[in-house]
Amino acid sequence: MLHQLFRIEWSALKLLEPPDAVEMLREFGDLLAKRAEPGEMGWSGAYRIAGGGIDVMLLHFRPDLEGLIQAGHEIQLSALGDFLSLEQEYISVVEMGLYALTATLAETVEPADREAWNSALDRELEGQREQSYIKKRLYPVQPEAMPYVCYYPMDKRRSSGQNWYTLSLQKRAALMSAHGSIGRQYAGRISQVISGSMGLADWEWAVTLWAPDPIEFKNIISEMRYDEASAEYADFGRFFVGKRMHPSEFGDLLAKEDA
Amino acid sequence: MLHQLFRIEWSALKLLEPPDAVEMLREFGDLLAKRAEPGEMGWSGAYRIAGGGIDVMLLHFRPDLEGLIQAGHEIQLSALGDFLSLEQEYISVVEMGLYALTATLAETVEPADREAWNSALDRELEGQREQSYIKKRLYPVQPEAMPYVCYYPMDKRRSSGQNWYTLSLQKRAALMSAHGSIGRQYAGRISQVISGSMGLADWEWAVTLWAPDPIEFKNIISEMRYDEASAEYADFGRFFVGKRMHPSEFGDLLAKEDA
Amino acid sequence: MLHQLFRIEWSALKLLEPPDAVEMLREFGDLLAKRAEPGEMGWSGAYRIAGGGIDVMLLHFRPDLEGLIQAGHEIQLSALGDFLSLEQEYISVVEMGLYALTATLAETVEPADREAWNSALDRELEGQREQSYIKKRLYPVQPEAMPYVCYYPMDKRRSSGQNWYTLSLQKRAALMSAHGSIGRQYAGRISQVISGSMGLADWEWAVTLWAPDPIEFKNIISEMRYDEASAEYADFGRFFVGKRMHPSEFGDLLAKEDA
Amino acid sequence: MLHQLFRIEWSALKLLEPPDAVEMLREFGDLLAKRAEPGEMGWSGAYRIAGGGIDVMLLHFRPDLEGLIQAGHEIQLSALGDFLSLEQEYISVVEMGLYALTATLAETVEPADREAWNSALDRELEGQREQSYIKKRLYPVQPEAMPYVCYYPMDKRRSSGQNWYTLSLQKRAALMSAHGSIGRQYAGRISQVISGSMGLADWEWAVTLWAPDPIEFKNIISEMRYDEASAEYADFGRFFVGKRMHPSEFGDLLAKEDA
Amino acid sequence: MLHQLFRIEWSALKLLEPPDAVEMLREFGDLLAKRAEPGEMGWSGAYRIAGGGIDVMLLHFRPDLEGLIQAGHEIQLSALGDFLSLEQEYISVVEMGLYALTATLAETVEPADREAWNSALDRELEGQREQSYIKKRLYPVQPEAMPYVCYYPMDKRRSSGQNWYTLSLQKRAALMSAHGSIGRQYAGRISQVISGSMGLADWEWAVTLWAPDPIEFKNIISEMRYDEASAEYADFGRFFVGKRMHPSEFGDLLAKEDA
Repeated sequence: MLHQLFRIEWSALKLLEPPDAVEMLREFGDLLAKRAEPGEMGWSGAYRIAGGGIDVMLLHFRPDLEGLIQAGHEIQLSALGDFLSLEQEYISVVEMGLYALTATLAETVEPADREAWNSALDRELEGQREQSYIKKRLYPVQPEAMPYVCYYPMDKRRSSGQNWYTLSLQKRAALMSAHGSIGRQYAGRISQVISGSMGLADWEWAVTLWAPDPIEFKNIISEMRYDEASAEYADFGRFFVGKRMHPSEFGDLLAKEDA
Repeated sequence: MLHQLFRIEWSALKLLEPPDAVEMLREFGDLLAKRAEPGEMGWSGAYRIAGGGIDVMLLHFRPDLEGLIQAGHEIQLSALGDFLSLEQEYISVVEMGLYALTATLAETVEPADREAWNSALDRELEGQREQSYIKKRLYPVQPEAMPYVCYYPMDKRRSSGQNWYTLSLQKRAALMSAHGSIGRQYAGRISQVISGSMGLADWEWAVTLWAPDPIEFKNIISEMRYDEASAEYADFGRFFVGKRMHPSEFGDLLAKEDA
Repeated sequence: MLHQLFRIEWSALKLLEPPDAVEMLREFGDLLAKRAEPGEMGWSGAYRIAGGGIDVMLLHFRPDLEGLIQAGHEIQLSALGDFLSLEQEYISVVEMGLYALTATLAETVEPADREAWNSALDRELEGQREQSYIKKRLYPVQPEAMPYVCYYPMDKRRSSGQNWYTLSLQKRAALMSAHGSIGRQYAGRISQVISGSMGLADWEWAVTLWAPDPIEFKNIISEMRYDEASAEYADFGRFFVGKRMHPSEFGDLLAKEDA
Repeated sequence: MLHQLFRIEWSALKLLEPPDAVEMLREFGDLLAKRAEPGEMGWSGAYRIAGGGIDVMLLHFRPDLEGLIQAGHEIQLSALGDFLSLEQEYISVVEMGLYALTATLAETVEPADREAWNSALDRELEGQREQSYIKKRLYPVQPEAMPYVCYYPMDKRRSSGQNWYTLSLQKRAALMSAHGSIGRQYAGRISQVISGSMGLADWEWAVTLWAPDPIEFKNIISEMRYDEASAEYADFGRFFVGKRMHPSEFGDLLAKEDA
Repeated sequence: MLHQLFRIEWSALKLLEPPDAVEMLREFGDLLAKRAEPGEMGWSGAYRIAGGGIDVMLLHFRPDLEGLIQAGHEIQLSALGDFLSLEQEYISVVEMGLYALTATLAETVEPADREAWNSALDRELEGQREQSYIKKRLYPVQPEAMPYVCYYPMDKRRSSGQNWYTLSLQKRAALMSAHGSIGRQYAGRISQVISGSMGLADWEWAVTLWAPDPIEFKNIISEMRYDEASAEYADFGRFFVGKRMHPSEFGDLLAKEDA
């Protein structure tokens, strides 16, 4: 999964002959349209961002690293690419929430016995991979009725007295379960993609939320902040909020609206 | 609500033929003039900023996210937009101060009983939304007699020993009440807009103050710094101070004053 | 009070025809010369900065915010302004040192009784405002014999265990008194301007020092660092050091010296 | 060892006549091809980076500082060098893992007796330098079957309560041994180069990993994060992930793939 | 003392006619050659930096602030100056190590008795200033046999539990003595210049090391990191490493070496 945050170089774009600029924007929309539908090779979505000095976010889902490299490369080689300034770019891998699973496993297998633990975990995951629940989490699709997006990266803290990584698995599972119970109250109002980036990028996770109303992002983040898992153990990067763009909307980016 | 902080590219602007530059500045003033009056669709105000490497701040109030995106888009598409370098941009949602309300509620409803608590809170807010007090807070208007502005973003801390989010609701309500009592001493000297941005932007809140005299910003911030809510629990971003510009003043930005 | 730190764009300046560049530098010197003498409307001084990637600092004293905005505007509209890159800009208000005064007041009035305290403080200040001591502090003038300058911004800490703002007034007064006693040993060797910027800029204070010998800046800062008020409670921004420029020196900035 | 992270200036590159641009890219590939094979004078490898705003990483191994300076210089003097923006550059020295060795030594020699300790350590190292194990660590070669790369810099912490450098040698050896036992489980799945940069660059170490599958980077870093040596004592810089490029692939960087 | 770290703008330099570029580089070398020999007015040295995104470091020693301002000014006015991007610039004053001296003094004079202490210290320094040891430290010269350089700025910490400035003089002297005893083991392998910048620049000290082999920088910094004075109380800035350039080498900077 690749998040790309762009600032459009409006003044350079406006220097082009208007028909050329609109044509270039439309071609870019066409490029995105080819990838807009989820499929075997993943999909790419575009979002108009509000605030944060960012104009457009692209979100690319692909089955492997090569696919993500190519997704970024297509943008660079496109004609509009010369008018897009890449301000932030983030690679991560979509994750299942394993805390519920490992908490159950820990009742029958000793986590310290690594060999037994890993093989039990593998068996469990193998079985679940066939199930649609996990598939939906690993190849997420944005619901039609949830056009708004929120994206932010985060870490778990490792400071003195607030160290997530020295907590016991039981304690972490309990904290994540409480955390998750808040999330479940937002079922139907928030759709969430958690992607991990340890060893791949600057933060440990990226969180991507979709909602039918952007105020839900503020509601869920505000409520979770008082939850122990966030209050004591979370560090957050920059937050971005926006709305899904249909690829055809790119052609209108230079059109003034009557106000 | 959208805060936009711009640096004007003076040297590029001065390269234009003087009449063209003045015409472009006037057109920009005209664009702002259309939005200067508060109405159903919100309003936009311009401020001349002193210091901080910033020349102009625009403040946009709109009823929804699309309105804020369009407000920023109009600036980008304007001719002067090519001479404005966007240095900081901040999205947030105007908030009511709920601490006084929840402290009262907590006397009759148990906050831990989430269902009872939320429905009691909703009933209370529903009733108040009709009242002018809340309307004024959610659709704030800058008083004519208070032309000066102060803007800064802030967080509540979550560090070991200074963690706002692990305090009890009672403790937080008491701290906010003490904090608010300082604020009330500035009634008539400071008008305040608190807007929340958890899940939307890099800080948790933006604070926008208006005053008849800019020294009041220094007075209130200095006094509050010794208050426990700020002294122990607040982290502040950059502060900016300035004065409201009438849209027609844009046309004079290249005119040298006799000194 | 406005501090402006500029980097001169030497390569662009050298591209001009030499007589044009020298003429432009001289005109800028003339502009500064008009404001060089302290008066009712304040004054502006120029300094050649050593190190820190900065070439020139301008210091503007004005009676109000509008005056500071105009001071910055004059630089932007000047021809040389196109060759000055503004790297840092800081607004603040010259302050009297009130700790000595409040410590005395606290012997007769209870600080917690805000009404009594404030009116006693006002009476005291009103009386002192007429006296030359306070005037000199609020409208500071650089001594002829002290051509060197040092500027840095600072905060008092609010971290766990090192929180200035939760100390009692008595404790703070005692710390500032010890701090001030070091300062008094530098009478005649250092002239100091403290300006506050809470609510106005990114740090709480700016400190501007003048001296007959720049080594005194290193001496006083080094000595004070071991003082409890600094050692435990101060956070410092970037330090800049330089030497007062006579406005006529601008005309020589492109002249190579024989070495 | 020198890590160089570049952003390609695509828009400038696309302005060239297509044959010229491809020729320039091919020449750059030829330059790298000369250094691609490990030898007495070291080797250089190129990687296509995914995310992080980086396009290409070059990795240079050389026997001395002059060799690394020259490696960077060749890139700067190349024609393509004008289209490469150097975003990060990191110098370090390949290290052997000495903790296992020193833990054994400490059983027979007193570390506090510096003279005895150092000469015992020298004798031990002298003996091992001849052995292939250490040679392989000091002149590392990327396995053919491991085309993926992960690079990040790191520090050991020196904060209150989490200070690696005040731990006893015995404690550090025990922590590194536990840490290493995780690493050994990745034998065949991860090949690791640790290079030290104390006194040379901004972090204390750089870590370079190679793997047959990039998900292994996420696996090992995630697993190690819970290990005490990382959980309590490690601070990490930015992580970058990518895939080895054959020098001939540079010629194709402007070719659009059918998608 | 002034450290200047430059990035050479290679692509702009390569756009010049080759003979013009080489001529310009030679002229710059000639400028530096005039200052290469230590003398009454100090000296300037050039270093080729490896890594850190820096190409060249200039080191200027001068007797006063005006001399350092002029040293920087000469670079700006030189023709090559237009192709040098100043990335970091640091001013400081060469210091004697006073801890050994003050520890001895403290046996006969009470440090708290400031008057007695200062006059005893002055007498002691006055006597030593005549001696060659101190002269060598205050007007340092790079040994011919030590062509490699290492530069980094540093602070002593003032955090809770790790506050250098609240330690007693006796404790600090003991820590510095232990620290110095490591340094003395590198006699002949490392030559060190400590320069103070409190009140002058962003860090408290700059450290400049010279050595016959750059691995010694890694050795001494690694060894000292475990020493209490560094492990508990030191904060470090960026480290840079490089090799002395003879001024005549500038003329060869655009020449490709056969490899």
